[in-house]
Amino acid sequence: MFRDGERAIRKEWFVRLFASAVFLEEAMTVTLHVCITCRAGQTLGEGEVAPGKRLHEAILAAGIPDDVNVVPVECLSACSQGCSVALSAPGRWSYVYGRLTDAHAGDIVAGAAAYAAASDGLVPWRSRPEIFRKQSLARIPPIAVVPEAAE
Amino acid sequence: MFRDGERAIRKEWFVRLFASAVFLEEAMTVTLHVCITCRAGQTLGEGEVAPGKRLHEAILAAGIPDDVNVVPVECLSACSQGCSVALSAPGRWSYVYGRLTDAHAGDIVAGAAAYAAASDGLVPWRSRPEIFRKQSLARIPPIAVVPEAAE
Repeated sequence: MFRDGERAIRKEWFVRLFASAVFLEEAMTVTLHVCITCRAGQTLGEGEVAPGKRLHEAILAAGIPDDVNVVPVECLSACSQGCSVALSAPGRWSYVYGRLTDAHAGDIVAGAAAYAAASDGLVPWRSRPEIFRKQSLARIPPIAVVPEAAE
Repeated sequence: MFRDGERAIRKEWFVRLFASAVFLEEAMTVTLHVCITCRAGQTLGEGEVAPGKRLHEAILAAGIPDDVNVVPVECLSACSQGCSVALSAPGRWSYVYGRLTDAHAGDIVAGAAAYAAASDGLVPWRSRPEIFRKQSLARIPPIAVVPEAAE
């Protein structure tokens, strides 16, 4: 039997443990953000669909791997570089690619699948689609979570 | 008294709880990555310091806020855009800025401090240094950790 205080502490642990488990499960998922507001420098006619939205639709139509989550976003702040997408996941390098059109949807999905298969997000150069090799706008290292606490 | 199995489970909880606490503490820290290999399109003379390394040194000399961690990095893959830095933290938008020189160090540190002070990383437009308003190369949304698990 436990005292009430111990019960409360155990309950608190359960909550934190559950939160950790949710976090760790989600950490496995790769996110592909697609800027859907991008006009790629064009002036759109009445009823015309923005190139970014067309790219998003083409990516969805190309067939998304189970471990990749496609998320539309309003602006990736890379507006001078045409349509853009970003690949990210906890503990991995993040990448932003630009100068994309809906014709690139298949390559983007293939690149996202390769990224999802690399535990640190670092896909060997030759295994990246050409658009990922030539149209990188930026990459950001994974955020170091533990080093300072380990001192 | 507990059975051995219960003891083992409690020990496991302790480890997970500690890991969560470390993660949450680290999550408060903002990372400013600085590309130190950047040559900004120049051919360097014998013994000349790379512009990226000069930028890194100038940022350190400018005085870093306690809640910002400056981390040198070899290449942010934004090589056509001069020297670059990236701001990121768990749960926040990440930003990459380019076309920077060591003369911008003070503004970069001020921008990093404003970012650290904004819990989601979204600093009001007018509170951003001009170089952050005009020299953004890309931004990446925070990675959604919970939504699917909440369904």
